[in-house]
Amino acid sequence: MKILLVGASGTLGRAIADTLKHHEILAAGRSSADYPVDITDDASVEALFARTGKLDAIVSAAGVLHFGPLESMKPSDFAIGLNDKLLGQVRLALLGQHHLNDGGSITLTTGIVSEEPIRAGANASAVNRAIEGFVQGAAFELKRGLRINAVSPNVLSESWADYGPFFPGFEPVTAARAALGYQRSVEGIQSGRVFKVW
Amino acid sequence: MKILLVGASGTLGRAIADTLKHHEILAAGRSSADYPVDITDDASVEALFARTGKLDAIVSAAGVLHFGPLESMKPSDFAIGLNDKLLGQVRLALLGQHHLNDGGSITLTTGIVSEEPIRAGANASAVNRAIEGFVQGAAFELKRGLRINAVSPNVLSESWADYGPFFPGFEPVTAARAALGYQRSVEGIQSGRVFKVW
Ligand SMILES: NC(=O)c1ccc[n+]([C@@H]2O[C@H](COP(=O)([O-])OP(=O)(O)OC[C@H]3O[C@@H](n4cnc5c(N)ncnc54)[C@H](OP(=O)(O)O)[C@@H]3O)[C@@H](O)[C@H]2O)c1
Ligand SMILES: NC(=O)c1ccc[n+]([C@@H]2O[C@H](COP(=O)([O-])OP(=O)(O)OC[C@H]3O[C@@H](n4cnc5c(N)ncnc54)[C@H](OP(=O)(O)O)[C@@H]3O)[C@@H](O)[C@H]2O)c1
Repeated sequence: MKILLVGASGTLGRAIADTLKHHEILAAGRSSADYPVDITDDASVEALFARTGKLDAIVSAAGVLHFGPLESMKPSDFAIGLNDKLLGQVRLALLGQHHLNDGGSITLTTGIVSEEPIRAGANASAVNRAIEGFVQGAAFELKRGLRINAVSPNVLSESWADYGPFFPGFEPVTAARAALGYQRSVEGIQSGRVFKVW
Repeated sequence: MKILLVGASGTLGRAIADTLKHHEILAAGRSSADYPVDITDDASVEALFARTGKLDAIVSAAGVLHFGPLESMKPSDFAIGLNDKLLGQVRLALLGQHHLNDGGSITLTTGIVSEEPIRAGANASAVNRAIEGFVQGAAFELKRGLRINAVSPNVLSESWADYGPFFPGFEPVTAARAALGYQRSVEGIQSGRVFKVW
């Protein structure tokens, strides 16, 4: 399969690239040399698809959230996750549906904070939940046998040094284990699913 | 209790005002004479709170979504619901937390499409799910005994003529019945709940 992987240089993205290395991987990201893209920008995403041509799968492991205490959170802080991780990934799906071969798939990234709130995580809970709602609604409307799923990783072992204090008692998973969720989505038959890796 | 009701002139808002009429209701909305507000604008919401003074409850029955087929949905269409129903209501909560008396409550509006996708409803599924995620995360971070919940109405009988074709086989509920969810939230003790009226 010809697979576009957005966020390929990230902690999660590198593991996904490795798990899917028996496919042709187009590694995209803001700082990618071959497939540069900013998912917060329509024109940039359209330029990416013009460069890739038809695809069999679009996988996103990108997206920024806002973390901060609710008491001092401003609407503009909350908008960060809406514009980046949420609308950025939805943009890849909405524009990308027209660049997939019949039977192709879209896989977006959510995360455990969707269902397990953490301190300073109200934006993450909202954004992740929205991605799951979008995927579950969109799955029934996609044409030509296209599929869409999300993967919800627990906090990653590789990110534990940075995020551990916000996840007391959580059991981190390796990025390699989280990457299996993406393989299930890309190579499997299901649609409208949230594959939880926790 | 002194209750700010945003969207008081709407189909749902009028029923909520009636159900809570044993309280002091401050009826707000874009076209309200006494308490005009546009929830998509920080300054407008701050001006509203300056006018209301301290409150015991904030209830929102406002917020616009985008409905349209996934195949022709543009990122800018999807952003409509993000900026209005989602960020608008979150704005009321984030700014409003500082204008509530101890033990006060915030009640936002989601809807059945959160869990039951409909044709042309991908934006509604995402936005409603996000509101629920925000409420469930924020509940644990609020200070001073403040509470936050959401109410998820089924399609309303009063809106059936407009929305019925999108809800085949759904059983509409009256706005009066949906309004009971808001009473449970405002007068009850729970927090972080989604009260489903379906
Ligand atoms: N790490 C965890 O523990 C964890 C757990 C659960 C879920 N997640 C989710 O997994 C996703 C990836 O996390 P990560 O830890 O792997 O992040 P990361 O190491 O910071 O990597 C992010 C990747 O996304 C790209 N990217 C960021 N913003 C972009 C934009 N606007 N347009 C295009 N590409 C962009 C980055 O490329 P450039 O650097 O070139 O811009 C990079 O390749 C996030 O959505 C995160 O919420 C992470
Ligand atoms: N109707 C249904 O069947 C149904 C079912 C489930 C959930 N819901 C949800 O319930 C909420 C209300 O629905 P509804 O049918 O009652 O809507 P509606 O009759 O159109 O009323 C909307 C109300 O919100 C106010 N409003 C709209 N945009 C606003 C803004 N930017 N700032 C401040 N106020 C604003 C309007 O006031 P002005 O006209 O003065 O601007 C009006 O009072 C929506 O979130 C909807 O998604 C509705």
